[in-house]
Amino acid sequence: MKNPIENLNKAFDSRVRLGIMSAVMVNDEVNFNQLKELIQVTDGNLASHIKALEEIGYVKVNKGFIGRKTNTTYAATKAGEKAFKLHLEALEQMIKSTK
Amino acid sequence: MKNPIENLNKAFDSRVRLGIMSAVMVNDEVNFNQLKELIQVTDGNLASHIKALEEIGYVKVNKGFIGRKTNTTYAATKAGEKAFKLHLEALEQMIKSTK
Repeated sequence: MKNPIENLNKAFDSRVRLGIMSAVMVNDEVNFNQLKELIQVTDGNLASHIKALEEIGYVKVNKGFIGRKTNTTYAATKAGEKAFKLHLEALEQMIKSTK
Repeated sequence: MKNPIENLNKAFDSRVRLGIMSAVMVNDEVNFNQLKELIQVTDGNLASHIKALEEIGYVKVNKGFIGRKTNTTYAATKAGEKAFKLHLEALEQMIKSTK
């Protein structure tokens, strides 16, 4: 048996990060409340995982305004898209290895 | 977009646990050194994740002997098999949602 977790990326070692990346992969950008509602996590939990993904360079933060209200949105970086695709491929390999 | 991580199981929120479960799903039983070699992790890291999976009831520990040497092996419980299969299905759903 080959190492089933060989190419899995430690940066995605949490359901919340998988959820954030899934959302920014299929949407050009998403705001905090959209993410929170989608993934059903607390503000603090979501904020800490977004920050980690931003620090790694997989998610970029855009601080904009809607009228006079701040509207912070998140999008995948090219590096984030590439890394997450590789992670999903590695997950698919692992799933195949158990069948 | 549906919640991409809705059915993901928090107990499998780490690559090491994914590796342990993959191994015990395709082998009747595996010993510590086989797991360590397969997943390429430190003794301490592996031991703590096995203990957690055992406490949750997903892995069972068999303490046997080979000659006079102790030989501890690990196997998936029925509950562990069921939970991991559901987790893999949820991962497949998440992967599909990003395509």
